[in-house]
Formats: sequence, C-alpha cells, structure tokens
Amino acid sequence: MKKIITLGEVMLRLSPPGNQRFFQAQSLDVEFGGSEANVGAAIAYWGEHVAHLTAFPDSEIGWAASGQLRKNGIDTQFIPHIPGRMGIYFLENGAMQRSSQVIYDRAGSAFAGFDGKDLDWDAIFEGASWFHWSGISPALSKECADLTLKALQEAQKRGVTVSGDLNYRSNLWKFGKEPHEVMPALMELTNVFIAGTRDFKQCLNEDFKNFEDARQKVFERYPQLQYLVKTDRESHSSSHNTMTAFLYGRDETYSSRSYDLTHIVDRVGTGDAFAGGLIYGLLHMKPNEAIEFAMAAGAIKHSVPGDVLLCSLQEVKDLASGEAVGKIKR
Amino acid sequence: MKKIITLGEVMLRLSPPGNQRFFQAQSLDVEFGGSEANVGAAIAYWGEHVAHLTAFPDSEIGWAASGQLRKNGIDTQFIPHIPGRMGIYFLENGAMQRSSQVIYDRAGSAFAGFDGKDLDWDAIFEGASWFHWSGISPALSKECADLTLKALQEAQKRGVTVSGDLNYRSNLWKFGKEPHEVMPALMELTNVFIAGTRDFKQCLNEDFKNFEDARQKVFERYPQLQYLVKTDRESHSSSHNTMTAFLYGRDETYSSRSYDLTHIVDRVGTGDAFAGGLIYGLLHMKPNEAIEFAMAAGAIKHSVPGDVLLCSLQEVKDLASGEAVGKIKR
Amino acid sequence: MKKIITLGEVMLRLSPPGNQRFFQAQSLDVEFGGSEANVGAAIAYWGEHVAHLTAFPDSEIGWAASGQLRKNGIDTQFIPHIPGRMGIYFLENGAMQRSSQVIYDRAGSAFAGFDGKDLDWDAIFEGASWFHWSGISPALSKECADLTLKALQEAQKRGVTVSGDLNYRSNLWKFGKEPHEVMPALMELTNVFIAGTRDFKQCLNEDFKNFEDARQKVFERYPQLQYLVKTDRESHSSSHNTMTAFLYGRDETYSSRSYDLTHIVDRVGTGDAFAGGLIYGLLHMKPNEAIEFAMAAGAIKHSVPGDVLLCSLQEVKDLASGEAVGKIKR
Amino acid sequence: MKKIITLGEVMLRLSPPGNQRFFQAQSLDVEFGGSEANVGAAIAYWGEHVAHLTAFPDSEIGWAASGQLRKNGIDTQFIPHIPGRMGIYFLENGAMQRSSQVIYDRAGSAFAGFDGKDLDWDAIFEGASWFHWSGISPALSKECADLTLKALQEAQKRGVTVSGDLNYRSNLWKFGKEPHEVMPALMELTNVFIAGTRDFKQCLNEDFKNFEDARQKVFERYPQLQYLVKTDRESHSSSHNTMTAFLYGRDETYSSRSYDLTHIVDRVGTGDAFAGGLIYGLLHMKPNEAIEFAMAAGAIKHSVPGDVLLCSLQEVKDLASGEAVGKIKR
Amino acid sequence: MKKIITLGEVMLRLSPPGNQRFFQAQSLDVEFGGSEANVGAAIAYWGEHVAHLTAFPDSEIGWAASGQLRKNGIDTQFIPHIPGRMGIYFLENGAMQRSSQVIYDRAGSAFAGFDGKDLDWDAIFEGASWFHWSGISPALSKECADLTLKALQEAQKRGVTVSGDLNYRSNLWKFGKEPHEVMPALMELTNVFIAGTRDFKQCLNEDFKNFEDARQKVFERYPQLQYLVKTDRESHSSSHNTMTAFLYGRDETYSSRSYDLTHIVDRVGTGDAFAGGLIYGLLHMKPNEAIEFAMAAGAIKHSVPGDVLLCSLQEVKDLASGEAVGKIKR
Amino acid sequence: MKKIITLGEVMLRLSPPGNQRFFQAQSLDVEFGGSEANVGAAIAYWGEHVAHLTAFPDSEIGWAASGQLRKNGIDTQFIPHIPGRMGIYFLENGAMQRSSQVIYDRAGSAFAGFDGKDLDWDAIFEGASWFHWSGISPALSKECADLTLKALQEAQKRGVTVSGDLNYRSNLWKFGKEPHEVMPALMELTNVFIAGTRDFKQCLNEDFKNFEDARQKVFERYPQLQYLVKTDRESHSSSHNTMTAFLYGRDETYSSRSYDLTHIVDRVGTGDAFAGGLIYGLLHMKPNEAIEFAMAAGAIKHSVPGDVLLCSLQEVKDLASGEAVGKIKR
Repeated sequence: MKKIITLGEVMLRLSPPGNQRFFQAQSLDVEFGGSEANVGAAIAYWGEHVAHLTAFPDSEIGWAASGQLRKNGIDTQFIPHIPGRMGIYFLENGAMQRSSQVIYDRAGSAFAGFDGKDLDWDAIFEGASWFHWSGISPALSKECADLTLKALQEAQKRGVTVSGDLNYRSNLWKFGKEPHEVMPALMELTNVFIAGTRDFKQCLNEDFKNFEDARQKVFERYPQLQYLVKTDRESHSSSHNTMTAFLYGRDETYSSRSYDLTHIVDRVGTGDAFAGGLIYGLLHMKPNEAIEFAMAAGAIKHSVPGDVLLCSLQEVKDLASGEAVGKIKR
Repeated sequence: MKKIITLGEVMLRLSPPGNQRFFQAQSLDVEFGGSEANVGAAIAYWGEHVAHLTAFPDSEIGWAASGQLRKNGIDTQFIPHIPGRMGIYFLENGAMQRSSQVIYDRAGSAFAGFDGKDLDWDAIFEGASWFHWSGISPALSKECADLTLKALQEAQKRGVTVSGDLNYRSNLWKFGKEPHEVMPALMELTNVFIAGTRDFKQCLNEDFKNFEDARQKVFERYPQLQYLVKTDRESHSSSHNTMTAFLYGRDETYSSRSYDLTHIVDRVGTGDAFAGGLIYGLLHMKPNEAIEFAMAAGAIKHSVPGDVLLCSLQEVKDLASGEAVGKIKR
Repeated sequence: MKKIITLGEVMLRLSPPGNQRFFQAQSLDVEFGGSEANVGAAIAYWGEHVAHLTAFPDSEIGWAASGQLRKNGIDTQFIPHIPGRMGIYFLENGAMQRSSQVIYDRAGSAFAGFDGKDLDWDAIFEGASWFHWSGISPALSKECADLTLKALQEAQKRGVTVSGDLNYRSNLWKFGKEPHEVMPALMELTNVFIAGTRDFKQCLNEDFKNFEDARQKVFERYPQLQYLVKTDRESHSSSHNTMTAFLYGRDETYSSRSYDLTHIVDRVGTGDAFAGGLIYGLLHMKPNEAIEFAMAAGAIKHSVPGDVLLCSLQEVKDLASGEAVGKIKR
Repeated sequence: MKKIITLGEVMLRLSPPGNQRFFQAQSLDVEFGGSEANVGAAIAYWGEHVAHLTAFPDSEIGWAASGQLRKNGIDTQFIPHIPGRMGIYFLENGAMQRSSQVIYDRAGSAFAGFDGKDLDWDAIFEGASWFHWSGISPALSKECADLTLKALQEAQKRGVTVSGDLNYRSNLWKFGKEPHEVMPALMELTNVFIAGTRDFKQCLNEDFKNFEDARQKVFERYPQLQYLVKTDRESHSSSHNTMTAFLYGRDETYSSRSYDLTHIVDRVGTGDAFAGGLIYGLLHMKPNEAIEFAMAAGAIKHSVPGDVLLCSLQEVKDLASGEAVGKIKR
Repeated sequence: MKKIITLGEVMLRLSPPGNQRFFQAQSLDVEFGGSEANVGAAIAYWGEHVAHLTAFPDSEIGWAASGQLRKNGIDTQFIPHIPGRMGIYFLENGAMQRSSQVIYDRAGSAFAGFDGKDLDWDAIFEGASWFHWSGISPALSKECADLTLKALQEAQKRGVTVSGDLNYRSNLWKFGKEPHEVMPALMELTNVFIAGTRDFKQCLNEDFKNFEDARQKVFERYPQLQYLVKTDRESHSSSHNTMTAFLYGRDETYSSRSYDLTHIVDRVGTGDAFAGGLIYGLLHMKPNEAIEFAMAAGAIKHSVPGDVLLCSLQEVKDLASGEAVGKIKR
Repeated sequence: MKKIITLGEVMLRLSPPGNQRFFQAQSLDVEFGGSEANVGAAIAYWGEHVAHLTAFPDSEIGWAASGQLRKNGIDTQFIPHIPGRMGIYFLENGAMQRSSQVIYDRAGSAFAGFDGKDLDWDAIFEGASWFHWSGISPALSKECADLTLKALQEAQKRGVTVSGDLNYRSNLWKFGKEPHEVMPALMELTNVFIAGTRDFKQCLNEDFKNFEDARQKVFERYPQLQYLVKTDRESHSSSHNTMTAFLYGRDETYSSRSYDLTHIVDRVGTGDAFAGGLIYGLLHMKPNEAIEFAMAAGAIKHSVPGDVLLCSLQEVKDLASGEAVGKIKR
C-alpha cells in the first residue's frame, strides 16, 4: 500500500435532482467534493492510503463533510474543524445543448482562512510516496497560497514526488495576487504537471505559440519536471464528449485510446478521476500503461454521479485493457 | 419591456417519474402547462411583461395553478377563479423506441365553460404589442371559440400583432363544430401563422398539394398575414429527433440551422418554446435572426423537464449564435 | 383589498428531509423564508396586496427566490437583483426531546449590503395601509439598519401604521453597533410592538422587573404606540408546545384561547404566521377578535411544512371560532 | 374460505406527500381507493375470496387500477374496462388543528355511467356468503342507483347476507333524486346497517329524536335487519381521535373497547377497515367478538398510509384481544 | 385467450436509484423479477391467461412478491407460501462504459428447497397451450431440477408445447451436478429452444464448431424440436446495444429487423421480453411474424424500468410493423 | 481520548419509507446497523476512539457497510472482507397501535462464519480501556460464540473493562447450543451487565423470583461484576413509550429520571444508544451521572432515524441535565 497526500478545499455540492433547473428545484442533492480530495478518493477506493489536508467548519455541516471523506476511505486525522463557513458550490447538470452551470459560494470558507500552522508535517509525510495539489488552492487566499508552498517544500524535502493540476480558473484569484506571481514558485517544486496551453499562459503570464512550444519551454525551465500530461476533450454537447489523453516525458510521448463519451451522467470530477488514475498509474505501472489507466479512470467517471470516481481497480483495468463493456456482470 | 398577451387553457400535468409507465407509478410529478401559457412563460423568463388569459377552478388546485404561473413570471391579474374542475393531462414520457403517451382528462374544465364576459379588454391590451393564441382553444367548446374570436377582434382593433399556432388536434373538436367552420374567421385576424400542411388542410377543409401550395394560397387569401412559420421534425426515436425551422414572408424565406436533438429529456412544450422564441425574435430582431433564435429556444427546451422552457436569454442566444455548448459554465 | 408593505431578508432554507440529521442528509429540502416575507405571504394568501422589500442576488438562485415569493402571492416589483450571494440557513427539524437546529450562513448576502437608495417610496407606499419590520434587519449591517430607519420614516410620513417584531437575536448584531444604539429610534416610529420582556431588555439595554414593568414603561415612553402584543409559549418538547397570545392596548387587555400544539410538523415561522394574523386582524376586526385570529394563524402554522402559513382565511377563521377540527373536509 | 362480493367506484387518489399542502406539491402520491373496495381489500388480505364489482376506464390509468386491486388480493374478473374517465379524488392529509381536505373530481367517470347489463350474476354469486354496498353508489347516478338495487335483489334472491354502509354524503346526490327516493328500497334488501343518526335522517327524510329513537324505528320497519352498527368518534385534532364501536341486534347490544388514536398516519378508509372487520367478524365469530375485531381493524387502519387496511389477521386479533402493542416484533 | 404456464424463481430485486453505485445508495428501488415470470408477465399484459409456478416465503416479503405477480396479471393460485427466505438480487444499473452489476443472494431460498409435491398438475395444465422453463431452475438445486423435469413430463403428457431458454449461467450449478448431467433430459421434452452456441456447449458438454454446427446437431438429436431461436446482440456500451433475432425451423430460417438500441433505460429482462414475444407470436402468428414480434418486444423492453415488459400489444405490434416511433401519442 | 473495542455483526437494514408496510414499498431505505456497532458509533460521535470487530463480505455491499462505519467515526482497520453474504434485516416501522416488525435474513452471513483467527489482539487492545459485547454474537454460530469468548479472555488478560448486553433473543440460538451452555463462561469475564430478569433466566437456565432475586444472585456468583444495569420500558404504543434506567453497584443503586417518549421516530437502537451512554458515562463520570447520561442518550435516540444515535455530547448532556428542550437552537 502506497501513501498519497492531497491538499485542497472540499465544498458542499448542491444540485437539483435529475435534469431540473435551479428555478425548479424543491430539493437539492448533497455531495461533498473538491478537486484534490476527489483525486484522493479515487485512489483510496483502489486500496491505497490517502490522507487529505484541508480544514472544515466546526459545525454539523463540517462534521458531515469529514464523515463523507472517511466513508470514501480517506484518512482525515490531519483535518482540523475550525470556525468559518462551509464553502458551497451549486451545480446544475446540463443535458443536450444546455450547459452545466456552477455557482460558487465559497468566499469566507474555513479553508480559505486556514494557515495550517499546526500541521505536523513529519507525521503527514511519514511513509508517503506522493503529494498532489492543484492551482485552485493558491488562487483562494494568501493563506492558501502560502500553505500550498509550505506543503510542497515539506514534500520535496522528504523526496516525495509531487504532481500539480495547474487548473487556471479566471473567476478565482481575487486576493490581490496574479497567478504568475504565485504559481512559478510552486511549479518549481512539482514533478508532474497536468496542464494545457492556456494554463501555462496564465500561470506564467507568457504567450506560447502552441502546446508544443509550451511543452518544450517548461521541460527546459523546470529541470525537476518528469512528466507533462494533458487531455484533449471535444464537447459535442453536455451529453456527448470525446476525449484522449497524452503523457509527455523528456524523451517519450504516449497517448491513450480515444473515448467516445455519450449518455454522460456527471461531467464534474472527470479530470480529477483522470489525475487519480495518473498518480496510481505512475506509482504502479509503466508510463504508457499509466496514461491508458488514467484515461480509463477519467472516462468511466462520466457514468458516476457525484464528484468522486468510486470504481474498483478491476473495473478501470478492464476498461483500460479494452475489454468488452456494457454487458451485465453477474 | 414589451407586453404580450396569451390566451388558453392551463392543465394540471401528471407524469410518472423518470421512465416509469403509468402502470408502475406510485407517485406522479406535478407540473402545470398549456400551449399558450408555455409560450408566455418562455417570454416572461426573458424579462418581458406577459399577461395570460384563462380561468382556473376556485379550489386549492386552481390556486396552485395560478401560483405556478406567477412563479414563472406571468401576470395573472386577469385570471378569474370560477366553479369547475381543473383540466388534467396525464403524460408518460417515452424513451427509445417507446412513444410518449398523453391521456387527456380535460372535459368539463373551468376554462372550457369560460365565456370571458367580465374581461376588461382595455386594461388587458393597454400597452400590449402582441397577442398569441392556438388552435386548441377554439376546439374545446363554443364558449372558448367565441372567446378566442372576441380576443382577436379586440387585439386587431388596437393594432396588436397577432400570432396563432394553428395546431390541429383530431381528438378535440367535439362540441359540434368542424374546424373549418371556426378557424377561418380566426385566421383572418392573425398576422403570423405557425402551421404545417396538415394544419391548413384541416382548418380550411381543403386539399393542398404540398406545403408550397398551401403557403402560396394562404398568403393570397389572408392579406393581413405577415409571416408563415413551420418546423420540420424527424423522430428517430423518443430520445432522438432532428429539427429545422423555416420562416416565410411574402418575399423572403429563412431557415434555421438544423439541430440534432439526442438524449431528449422532455419533448413536451418544445413547439411552445419555439413559438415563444419566434414572438420574442420578431419583436426584437430581424426575421433571419428571429427564426434562428426561435429554433434555438425550441431546441434547448428538449433538455428541460416540464412544459416550460425556463432558459435565460443569454443561454438561448449563445446556442442560436452557434457558440460551443456542453462545457461547464463556472 | 388592503396594501401591506414588508421589509427584510429572505434566505434559502435547506433542511434534511423528515427527521434526518445534517450528518445523514443525502438531499436537502429547499424553501425560501425570512421573518417579514413570511408575515407577508400569510397575508397575501388571504387576498390582500402585499409588496415585499428586499434584494436578491442576480443569479439563478436569486431568480428562484423571487419566483417563490410571486408564487406565494407577493408583489416583487420593488425587489432588485444585485451582485452578492444568497443568504442561507440550514435547518434541522427537531423531534421529541431533540431540539431543532439552525445554522446561519447569511454573512455577505446581497441584502446585507443593500442600501435601497433607488427605491421609489412614493410608488411603494401608494395606497398602503400597513408596514411591517422586524429586529432582524437592523441587526444585519449598517446598510440594513439605515434602510429600516428610512422605511419607517417614509411610512410614518404617509400615515401608514407600522408594526415591528422586535425579535432580539444574540448571534446577529455583529456590524459594530449594539441594539440599544439602533432600536430605540426605530421603536419611536412603530405603532404595534410584538415583543417580550427579553426583547425590551436587549433593545433598550435596561433591566425590567417583569413583563408588566416593561409594558408600563414602553407605553409611557412611546406615545405613538397603540398595541403591545406577545405570545407565551411553553416547549414541552420539539413535538409538543402550548401557546397563548396577549394583546395590550393602553386601556384594554385581551388574551386568546390557549392551544395545545402537539404532533408539530414545522415550528419555524409560527411567530411570523402569528404576526401576519395580527396585522390582518387589526386591519379587519376588533382587537379581541384580532388576537384570537392571530393566535389561530400561529397555531395552524405548526402543521404546515416550510416557513410560510399557506392557510385559507376560512381555515384560520374556523379554528379561531373554535369550530371542531380534525374532521375530513369533503 | 368465504366468498364476499363488494360493489362500488374505485378512484385514483392523489395526495401531496407527507404534510404538504396542495399549493406546495411537486408530486402527488398515487393510491387507488373507494369505500367498498377498501372493505373488500381488508378482507382479502385475511385470506377470503373477495370479488369486486365496478367498471374502469379502458386506459393505462384504468389498467393500473385493476392491477392494484389484484395486488390487494381482489378478484377482478367481473370488472369491465369501458370508455370514460377515471374518477379522481385529491386528498390533502391534515395534521394537528388543520383538517384533511378532499377535492372530488369524479363526475363523468366510467363507473358513473356503468349499467352492469352484462354482469353474469350467477357466476358472481356462485358460492358467495356476503354482499356489501354503501350509500355512495346510489348517490352517483341513476345507472349506479339502479345497478345497486339490481345487485341487492340478486343477492337476496340467493340468500346472500347483505351489509350496507349508509354513508350519506351531501355533496353527492346530484343526478336528480333525493336519498329518500332511493335508499329505502335498498335498505329493505339489507341485513346489516352501518349508520348513525344523521344517515338515517337523510336516507329516510325523517327526524329522529336521537340514535335510540332511530334504532328502534329501523328495527321495527325493516324486519330483515339483523344488526345495526355504528361507531362513535371524537376528533380532538387531525392527529388525535378517540373511537368506540357499537353493535345492536334485536335483543342484544355490544360495545367494543374505546381506542385512543393518537399520532394518526392516515384517517381515510378507517370506516371501511371497520366495515371489513365487521363482515369478517360476523362470518367467523360471535357478535361480541365481531364488534371488537371490527373496532380493532378500524383502529389499526389509522396507522397505515393509503385507503386500505393491509394488516394481517394476527395483527388485528392481537389488538382486539388487548395484547400489549408497540413492541418490536422480531 | 390462451393459457400459458411458466415455472421458476422470482427474486426481490434491489437497485440503487438512477445511476448511483451500491456504495452511494441511501435507498434501493424494489422490483420483483425472475426470468420465467418475466416471460409470463409480458404475455399476461397482452391479455392471455398466464399461471406461474414457484414458491414464496411465508412472510410479508413473500406476500408482496405474490401481490406484484397478481398486479402484473399473473394467476398465482398455484403458488404456495412456505418457510424459507426470499431470494434477492442486487442490481446496479450500468451506464456508458460502466457495466451493470448483479450480486446474487439467492442461496437457501424458499424456491430452491421447493419440491412441488403438492402441485395439482391436472388443474395447472387444464386448458393450457404452452409451458415455458429456463436453464436457471435446474441449476439451483436437486429439488428444482427434479421439479422442472416433472413439469416437462406433465406438460408433454398433455400435448402442451414446451419452450426452454437454455440460459447457461456459470455461477449457478453448485448443487453437485454438471449441466450435461441434467439438461439433456429436459431438452428432450422441449419443442422450442432459445439458445446460442455457448449454451449448447455447456448443456451438452460438447464442442461445436459454430452455431451452424450446433444447430444441425440439435435438430438431428432432438426430433421433437420445432424451432431453435437466438438473438445476436452487440454491446457498444451499457447505454447502447444493437440486436437482431433469428428463428430456425427444420426447413426455414427467418430473421428480424436489426435494432439500434441506444439511450437504454433497463437492460435486465430484455431476453425474457423477447421470449414472451416469441411464445405469443408462435401462438398467434406465422413464424416470420413471430420472430419480428418477439424482437420488437425485446427491443422495447430496453426502455422500461424493472424486470418486466409492461407494453401493450398495440405498442409492440406498431414497433414490429415498422411504424414511426417516438412521436407523442395523444 | 479513550479507546473502546466493540464486537458483533453489522447488517444491512432495509425499511419501507415513512409508515409504509412491506406490502406497499416501492423502495427501501438503506441503513447499516448491529447492536454493538451501534453502541460504538454513539461513542465515536462523542470523540472517543472506537474500533469495531466484525467481518464483512468481499462485495460492493460489504464495502458500503465498512464505509458507513468509517463515516460514523469507527476505526475499521481490523475488519476483514471475506467470502459470504451480508446479513440483512428488514424493518417495518410501526406506528400507533401497530407494532414494528423485523424480518431477519441473516443466516449464512460472512460474520456468522468468521473465526477471527487472524485478529491481532495486541494491536486491537493497545491502549484500550473498554470492551463491549452482546448476547447476540454467541447466539449466531459456534464460530461466533468461540470468537466472543476469545475476545473476552484477551480483554481481561489486559485489564480492559468488559460490558455485556445479555440481550436474549429466542429466535437466534439455532446452532446446537443452549444459552446456558455458552453464556455463563462469558458472564464470568464481564464487569458490567446490562440485563433484565428474563435475560438472566434464559442465560442461566434458572428461575428467579424477581429482578431483586436475580440481582442478588448474580452479584454473589460473579465476583468480577461491578455494575448491573437495566431499563424499565412501558410501551403504550409504537409511538409512545415511557422509560427509566437503573444502575446497581454492590453497595449503591441509582435511577435516572423517567422519560415520557412520545412522537417516536425510530425505536430501533435505543438500547444500544443507552449502552453507549453508559460506557461513556462510566469512563468519564460518577455512577449517578453515568446512568442519567445513559438514559438521556437512550431517550434522544428515539428521535433519530436509523440504528445509530448521532447526537453530540452537548445535546445529550443538555438533556441529561434537565435543560429545557424543544426550542429552536440558532
């Protein structure tokens, strides 16, 4: 069993049931999700030891959040319950030509004000093989940016491999810093990037001709970088996407099979499932197998409601290996 | 803000949840809908002032109906609550090769017996730009046929543009008159027809060679007619249709993009959403833009449960202008 | 038809279904509620013209909130949709010896930052007979306290009767002012107080020996005061209360029948239903009838889920007049 | 196994879930019920052969109705599916001081127009011991009144015991006859009356001093009458009733234990459960045991949602014999 | 009306709602199903007399099971309620690239221990035209294998046509016998086989080159065999299959149209619906029509939730005859 | 933080929603529960370290069960997932005069065949203060009886206090041993008994005159016994009980306040909540406080749906200390 550490905010997710619009909802389905914990939950379901770092409110809502993480197999022993509110995101599931909509209501959350001063880094990283972060955390607040940097330093100090999903989101970054003032220092401490051209442009405030251009430059600039990973997704509609994944090493490039993803159940968290698959893959497989496994994990998440993958190792492996799908397993 | 008046019955719609059949249902989902009020609700959601004319029973069910119209932004001040029952339609949602089924239980409704004697037409049409009716109302009863005629006369007297969705339904028209005894007088007072060849055949009791033939003749016969509009729909299955819309002026013809409508959520009310888009479009856009906007409104309705469109102006415009769809909007 | 104006925040209310605890909820029931709008909705259901003053976020959640108010019969024409979040309160319904719990998440709401500068007071108060506020609004923010004061001045200027539910809540009042710095000026512009001894102590920062002592002093101090109203409630459990209401004029005292309230469905909003009954009663009945009607309205609200009374005038009158209850009405 | 025949309309029952009001309902719970079929279903659940006579619409709704009767153990072989609509009743469950409300929407139902001309009375009554009718059927239409009379004649001709729940309802009887023009002929063919003073007054258009007076007169007037049965119910609230049952023979009087019925789940159909218990009791027990069994059946129905009792023979017997209740049976 | 007898276990089916995984379910949807009773229910819905043979537990769960069969129109008079548990199968509905999963929990069920000693074969087969069994029953236990054999003997003795869905399932057959020790004797008493190459291999423990090889040999070996029927299905995903059916007589071969089955609602029971359609077809139509009808029945079942077809004869005939599908039927 | 070890089976609990009967249920609510794990979950919610010993099936159902335990705060690291089925209990919630019913379907469960050979007792008991068992485990199978004995020996060897809820259930004990052949050896290793007169009679196969007689004899016979605890419960109905608790030491007797428990939500697990309160109380309080705390925990469980208490320490303490209950906590 490997030990993986993830860091990031977990929000209360509230969605109208089925295909209802917000305007129609008389109840909202409850999930808890956040990019990095979603990554961790996927891996924990496959039997690894995953500990997540975050902060929850000291309220019944916060206790429900940590309970859900535990149910998903995540080690919550390092998560404090502190004053503050629970970050919320309202999600309306799209269908057909109608897009999904997310309304964030996360300002002033317990995590946004969390400085992690009391975290016991020795205990956290004892026996750990991997650390994962995303570009969402440093975008939330100065405290979160500092905490992310601190975590990366502690990870690298102990030889833990670090992956980062750069994940630039324009509607965050409101605490007074631009991404390029914060992200480069974090990228220097990261061994695997999950990112596309747009992420690099925003994080580095630099104009790249195309992905190839960006790829060459980041491999040059970041000597600690082992892999650069991206997915290409085409959205035909909310119900139908196609998707392929690519893994670039310094001397090698691998691509996954392409997936035709139609009859989509829940699009949210599919990138996180992919990242979970990537981490698991790189810990246990050869790179070409890893990217295939990661893409299969991302693909199958489209069929699972909620933020989290919740698929067995065997299910993902079967899909990755191209086994016939869709039959009833008895 | 424009003012639009709509007239017609609103029924209690009862549907088994999800893909259940009537035989299986232990509960029925409640909506309220009727062709003309659906048109009005789509427009009201876009910020216009829409007043609907109908009558509801003076019962808790009737109060719930008018409450729902108000929620949808419709001005209900001209709607009386009178003795009588609530018209009901039972809807079983089809899927795949199984058709949707509607069981009407609307005989003897409060609206069917409503003569509208006490309506204050001056107040109703004060500031109004548009009036919309459909071929369902004159089919229900002598009272409703007379009321529709009266409303059209009052509209034309005040220079209000009138649109009519001719919408022939063979299982109505049971009060002793044939369509061709009633509809021509109404069509003479209408400036925009939404109709296909079959509607013209039935309403005029006349055999047209094809749509082109019908089109030429109605433009000749009805000098007040400004536009004739129709949609072509192909039903591959209950879950998959294709659809294109056409707008004919006296000297011009416009067609919309074709839509591939798969993963259909709710097929009911898509023609009404189209009609709503058409009225809004003709009030605010050029005819070629209007038909594109109308078709986008009709298309996106297929993804919304219930009778009513409930999509923002921006959503419809984005789809009409061919923007990429299906991404998560954050 | 009388016209009544109410002012105050409306929040999204999220509750676990049935008797579930927050920790168990996989969905949350959606209601919209706020003390003053609850008062208004009760009265609107009885056929009066009620306009509510508040501000909602310019988001799908905000549009759903104003839609719900309209459904409940409230005139929303004066409600702007502005930037900001929707205030939320999480409600866990208690049962038996377990108390109900409310977790407020209302900081930073659109209403809390609403200054009402653009309100057209002439239009608002045109034809109005009554204005109602509560002690919650001035507790939320300086903007809300100022807005409440402004509204009271505008009301009194036009001879509109003003009622105030003093309703001191210790977990509000965080914007830098103490109640006694704000409330007395509002009380001077109010003709009907709904309050108990503890409210007076907190609002006036003064120690009263008992209710009798407080009553005498406030009648002396506030010459514009016409009625002082309070309810005595005994909570045997979350499922069983007893309750009586009292109305004090300058020269008269009336008390209602006592109600044994057992098998409670929803305790929230019962005070608001009472206040709604009181306003309706004082507008249409003699004081002794008004307090009986108000208490019946408050009592019957315990049987209705959600924040709002939603009972017909006849139902309340029947209960107030002591008619046999509990039979099936066919 | 005894064979019992019941006759009467079965309606679609639509109720808001839980304690919701009609105004709030976004779905309606589906049940099928009607007084006489409810009686039959209770008895069928105890293992007797019960055949019900009615007519259903020839629609999916009608097929669902007959399916539900079959599920409840009722023999539906004599029920035709004919043109017409399904009678509906909307039921809002009361609670506390708020009454339950029934809105009937049964006019023009398939049953109301059913003349039963094709019924094979020999087959129906072959082996039958008992026939049960209620005062609802003759109140619906001339056809139903005639059909009821015909059925009673056929029953008496074959020596089948007949029970009738006189059950006067003022909002029926709209087809042009008064009860006293129809009911006496039916009463002459009935051996067991379930009725109170008010029923006798209305059915016979005669003023009785009190129940005792009515009892003496009906026993004198109807020589075929074996038993007269009534229940005394006090409604403290929708959630709390008390109830006792009485059986009068020509020379004997028996009363059941009194029941304190609090925390009521569903009040509808409790009289029918009582009648079912009575018939079963009179077929299998001594009169004093029968009335105790009937009262237990009626009492326990208050705890079962829907129109129908659905309690095992053992459960009713345990309650009737005063066994400790409320323990968990494992 | 024809009479058809079916024999086999009916289980409680428990499924997470919608697309939830077992891990997420806070409730499970309840259905009752079993291959042979599913076949019977499809036919009963079309108006035939279908009696099912099985055994249910003598518990509330067992009574609910027989009630559901009755609702579906099945004659349950030959089904005893005996000691033992209810067999259960947990079904997780797949979607997209995620397979459906069935967890069987059927060991020790009432049916598995049922020897049918008290069955009255004369009564059962009186007037019967057809008997249907499947390869599941003889796989469950020695008792069930013996009972199946006995039933086939009784059927053939009376000239009743017998169909068998050979349906080999590797995770059954745990009672000490191999399929080839049991199945041949049953096949000798069967007139219509529904089976593919793999079924023949396992049932006969013999290696066939291909289906053609198997087909020739079984027609040679089983002189009583009239028809051999199979379906070819390709599973593109859990949401999308394609399917064609083939009927082989001794001198003739017919194939149905191919169906593109996308947007699948419930894949379970589609083979049973096909078998039901086949039996109905062979009883009422020519063989080429029968296989088209059967395939249409199987196709449309993919759109109906639950184990059972529940489609009217007209719906299946419309689909079989290639009528346009997917329009709303009003 | 104290460490408490609990041992016992956890079953899948399936209940019809609300007050439905099994016969009516179209879905079943899912919970996981078992007496000893319920005890542990109550304590874990109060912040103690609770590890539960059991075995789950190696299936999706089993993983859901261990996930739920983790959500409830229980340490599941010692729980193996092994072949076998999940024990199930079907629970129908009673109401009023109708009793709750439990149908056990637990034979052949993974736990029943679990011998615990691989348990690491040193790791389990490291730092542990308390061990809790119940009379259910030794009644299930020889393996479970042996495992319980082994666990008690390991506990006593390390000086861990042992409590046992003797809990005789007549429908268990089917593996060939009588209680009195198994229980006395377990009782000799137990320091706190939770038991009534009937439990002692059955476990010791001995006739006691009354509780007083039993109490004296067990204190004499079991020198290691520190406390004997019982509750007296009177069941007025399924919705209304009264209850008092008693704690007997060798030289002292304490009784709790009596609770009037009306409007009961869920009666199951109330004894387990009491036992959890008792253990927590004896670990942290004086005996008289402990019995008051335990009784409050048991009382408040009646208001929480599911098997498990899920109440904060503060809520229980408030109730135990007689604080006013039933107010809304904001």
